[in-house]
Amino acid sequence: MQNKKDAQKLHDLRHSAAHLLAQALCELYPGTLLTLGPVTDDGFFYDFLPPQGTISEADLPAIEEKMKEISARNLPIVQKEISKEEARELYKDNPFKLELIDGIEEDTVGLSCQGDFCDLCRGGHTTSTGDIKNFKLLYVAGSYWRADKDKQALQRVYGTAFETKKELDTYLQRREDALKYDHRRIGKELDLFSFQPEGVGFPFFHPKGKQIFNLLVEYVRRILTQNGWQEIATPIMLSEKLWHQSGHYEHYRDNMYFSDVDDKRYAIKPMNCPGGCLIYKNRPRSYRELPLRMSEIGLVHRHELSGVLHGLLRVRAFTQDDGHIYCTPEQIESEVLREIQTITKAMRDLGFENVSIALSTKPDNAMGDNALWQQATDALASSLKKAGLEYTVQEGEGAFYGPKIEFMIEDSMGRVWQCGTIQVDFFMPENFDLEYVTNEGTTARPVMIHRAMFGSFERFLGILLEHYKGRLPFWLAPVQARVLTITDEQRPYAQKLFDTLKQHNIRIELDESSDQISTQIKAAQLQQIPWMLVVGKKEVANNTITLRHRDGKQEFGLTVDQLLERAQELTPTEMLPIR
Amino acid sequence: MQNKKDAQKLHDLRHSAAHLLAQALCELYPGTLLTLGPVTDDGFFYDFLPPQGTISEADLPAIEEKMKEISARNLPIVQKEISKEEARELYKDNPFKLELIDGIEEDTVGLSCQGDFCDLCRGGHTTSTGDIKNFKLLYVAGSYWRADKDKQALQRVYGTAFETKKELDTYLQRREDALKYDHRRIGKELDLFSFQPEGVGFPFFHPKGKQIFNLLVEYVRRILTQNGWQEIATPIMLSEKLWHQSGHYEHYRDNMYFSDVDDKRYAIKPMNCPGGCLIYKNRPRSYRELPLRMSEIGLVHRHELSGVLHGLLRVRAFTQDDGHIYCTPEQIESEVLREIQTITKAMRDLGFENVSIALSTKPDNAMGDNALWQQATDALASSLKKAGLEYTVQEGEGAFYGPKIEFMIEDSMGRVWQCGTIQVDFFMPENFDLEYVTNEGTTARPVMIHRAMFGSFERFLGILLEHYKGRLPFWLAPVQARVLTITDEQRPYAQKLFDTLKQHNIRIELDESSDQISTQIKAAQLQQIPWMLVVGKKEVANNTITLRHRDGKQEFGLTVDQLLERAQELTPTEMLPIR
Repeated sequence: MQNKKDAQKLHDLRHSAAHLLAQALCELYPGTLLTLGPVTDDGFFYDFLPPQGTISEADLPAIEEKMKEISARNLPIVQKEISKEEARELYKDNPFKLELIDGIEEDTVGLSCQGDFCDLCRGGHTTSTGDIKNFKLLYVAGSYWRADKDKQALQRVYGTAFETKKELDTYLQRREDALKYDHRRIGKELDLFSFQPEGVGFPFFHPKGKQIFNLLVEYVRRILTQNGWQEIATPIMLSEKLWHQSGHYEHYRDNMYFSDVDDKRYAIKPMNCPGGCLIYKNRPRSYRELPLRMSEIGLVHRHELSGVLHGLLRVRAFTQDDGHIYCTPEQIESEVLREIQTITKAMRDLGFENVSIALSTKPDNAMGDNALWQQATDALASSLKKAGLEYTVQEGEGAFYGPKIEFMIEDSMGRVWQCGTIQVDFFMPENFDLEYVTNEGTTARPVMIHRAMFGSFERFLGILLEHYKGRLPFWLAPVQARVLTITDEQRPYAQKLFDTLKQHNIRIELDESSDQISTQIKAAQLQQIPWMLVVGKKEVANNTITLRHRDGKQEFGLTVDQLLERAQELTPTEMLPIR
Repeated sequence: MQNKKDAQKLHDLRHSAAHLLAQALCELYPGTLLTLGPVTDDGFFYDFLPPQGTISEADLPAIEEKMKEISARNLPIVQKEISKEEARELYKDNPFKLELIDGIEEDTVGLSCQGDFCDLCRGGHTTSTGDIKNFKLLYVAGSYWRADKDKQALQRVYGTAFETKKELDTYLQRREDALKYDHRRIGKELDLFSFQPEGVGFPFFHPKGKQIFNLLVEYVRRILTQNGWQEIATPIMLSEKLWHQSGHYEHYRDNMYFSDVDDKRYAIKPMNCPGGCLIYKNRPRSYRELPLRMSEIGLVHRHELSGVLHGLLRVRAFTQDDGHIYCTPEQIESEVLREIQTITKAMRDLGFENVSIALSTKPDNAMGDNALWQQATDALASSLKKAGLEYTVQEGEGAFYGPKIEFMIEDSMGRVWQCGTIQVDFFMPENFDLEYVTNEGTTARPVMIHRAMFGSFERFLGILLEHYKGRLPFWLAPVQARVLTITDEQRPYAQKLFDTLKQHNIRIELDESSDQISTQIKAAQLQQIPWMLVVGKKEVANNTITLRHRDGKQEFGLTVDQLLERAQELTPTEMLPIR
């Protein structure tokens, strides 16, 4: 993680790169109307209206050249304050800037100038255009003034900039990889899933994709069982009334789908918790049952604008590895500790070594008792310390209903994904009037802890496919092994090998073509099958197998028992015995 | 199965019993207006309007007494034909009978008389009221004239009759059992599932119910994998357009729920097949892929009137063990043969020894080529013969889109449930324009075979609970074993036993109360736990376990290894290794 000073420096650099882009546009296309050009997580963009026609990706090299030229001029970047009057005069031909000036409350307006180019700006820049050396324009997109599709259509150019060439090159390589290993592309190549116009944003899982999905679900189920969780299932459709009670209707209805049942309004559930609360309330609960851990592999539907849908990473229906712990405030710490350990272990099992953690504390609009907040937040912090884990504190960034822990995983292309969460909730038990009978016979309100490891199986599968670039580890591969024969003579031996491994629940195929072995290998490699079991004359004679890996490495003279042992070693203990 | 002659005899007996009931009502309550009194699957009823007030269940013994008295009169039953004029005169005070007479096309009307009691009737009776000896009135219900709730409200008395007292007693015992072992009652006692007003007709599965559900799904998955099936998953919501294409909108829309997505109309799926067809069509298919077997554990929603909802047996959302085979007409026979064998084996695994089978053939409104129908029907019949199974033929009762096989299972209370189906479909491949490339490079249309073993997991679970009267077999029990200790001294030994069996994936609990052993046993029995593992001084000394079964039988001196071996024996091979 970079420190705050470095972060500010990078921010300033990218901010200046955006101005550099704007200046280049104005010099190349006089009459260009500039609007806004902010810094983003991994670069910057600028929105503008060209004097005529449109800018395309083919124009980016020329714009970059112009930017380099201005950078070479090494123009000092000077920040000043001018009166609104002056600003209005300066931008009298630019209605966007005039609107921005009108929106400024102060009497003066910030202006950043380099050479004869100026832009409205609050400041935060490098000292000179010469400081901006390692930058790259990435792509062109459409946008709207004020992001409102009823307003003027604009053009947007995205770019990025780094302090060093090495950082820029690493970023560009990862970006290229990310495009190359886009999970939608892998999904198609490996025939894992698809999207159809008949269900926009709703994934269709093909056999091999469903196989991986089921393995992830099975993995979660086994870990939950070990940890004393009990699984439940609640309906997909529940009456609108319930969503009023839970508060979702008020805050979330624009993302919900509705239907009618017997002239009553029902919602397709966007969350599993309200249904879970109904099961909790179905009978009186005793303190002896707490902590009560109820999980649900729950399918939820949430509306997203069609423009933001993105393969499995952003869908309109997904399956949560949801779970709710009902417990006393005193039990929070030990419950959270176990979940933290489980989540970090699971992420390692799934191939993510770098997990970062953030603790979000009480926000200004918090509900609930101060002492309870303090107790819960202390419990979260204490369990993180007991687990021996580093974490950052996001002061005041908890939800209004309780503090939370978030887990971020870094993938093989350096991107960070938020997946696991542990969220304390004082609100839902209140809303649903949840109670338990204490050991003194009185009733008390339990605390509720929401927690998920993967968040969404669909999204996690998308992340996994990109992280592994399609080469899933042995235990998650939809097809784990394929038997290949040098000539048809080895067919009976191959068939026997296939049968034996299948009996031991290895997901295996037999190449029944009479193709040359090189063709067979290529076909298996395209499907990213971890084990190619090559069988020739020698293997039959010695009753052995040659194991060829996806990377071309070969091991000779293996026995079936050795293969089975290897399979065991490659499988997390939770998934044993293999079946 | 009873033969046709016996069936007719029983039908006549029940028909006469209905008349006997009608006569008794008229004698007890002069002025009663009779309407209709048909024979049902397991008895008869009569709808009538009493002269005043209502008949309640408390009145049934008196009515039965009167019936016995008339039976003892041994009145000959005489069938005659009278003119419509005479009939109208006879029923001038009964508007219902007058309406019936108006509806008769012939010039004459049938009348059945016994003593001075007559009723409109086409005939089919015993020779004398004395023949009706073994009957019982069961309950009273409300009904409407012509089953139309806008018409006159009537009263209905249900009864049954048998040839022998033994048959009647068996029936009544089973009926009592069925009430006692109602799955809704078992579901509540064992905390398996519930229904909530927030989701009428949508089941909520509690931890133990979900455990059984998951075991059934796992069993199906393993069998399907063995048989070369591939699992897919399609969305819950799909555009209305698709349901027009599939024909469901036209024929089934009153049972469908709808929603809006981005101003487009979507349906909550009532069937899985259209989604499956989209996956089939997602890429070109080759003859090499056929037969292609794609299964889906698919959740479907189908509207039912609230009045017919009945626990898990009739719900508005259920999970099908759905499957579709895409194949050539030549492949139908071998595919169907394997499915028949699988379904009958599965039903035996689940405890249903009596499976009857019906083959339904081409109806009048059939679509598709005659020769194809013949080929498919022959293939179904031939595969049934090859499987060595008896079956009945239901001539003309196939669906308009293809012939089908239905599997009926008989439960422990003698009731018959239709579960498995194998349905050939020429229509859907046509509608979705499904194709494959033949080995000659041309394109051809596959046949589609729909098939299910359980039909609905929810309904099958309901049937299972009633069939086993809550005492599920060891491998399906949500909790398989509970460790009980005679005194607290055995607690460490009990804990070790619990840990060991849990490690071997036995679903086990430990009674941590200090209750007396008899109390512990009673608690375990109420939860229908198959194995009570009793541990006392002697067991600790000898390092053994006493195994107490639900029926009270005990086995002494067992070792852990013996228990594990026993657990294996009690589990279908498909579910091994136990996990």
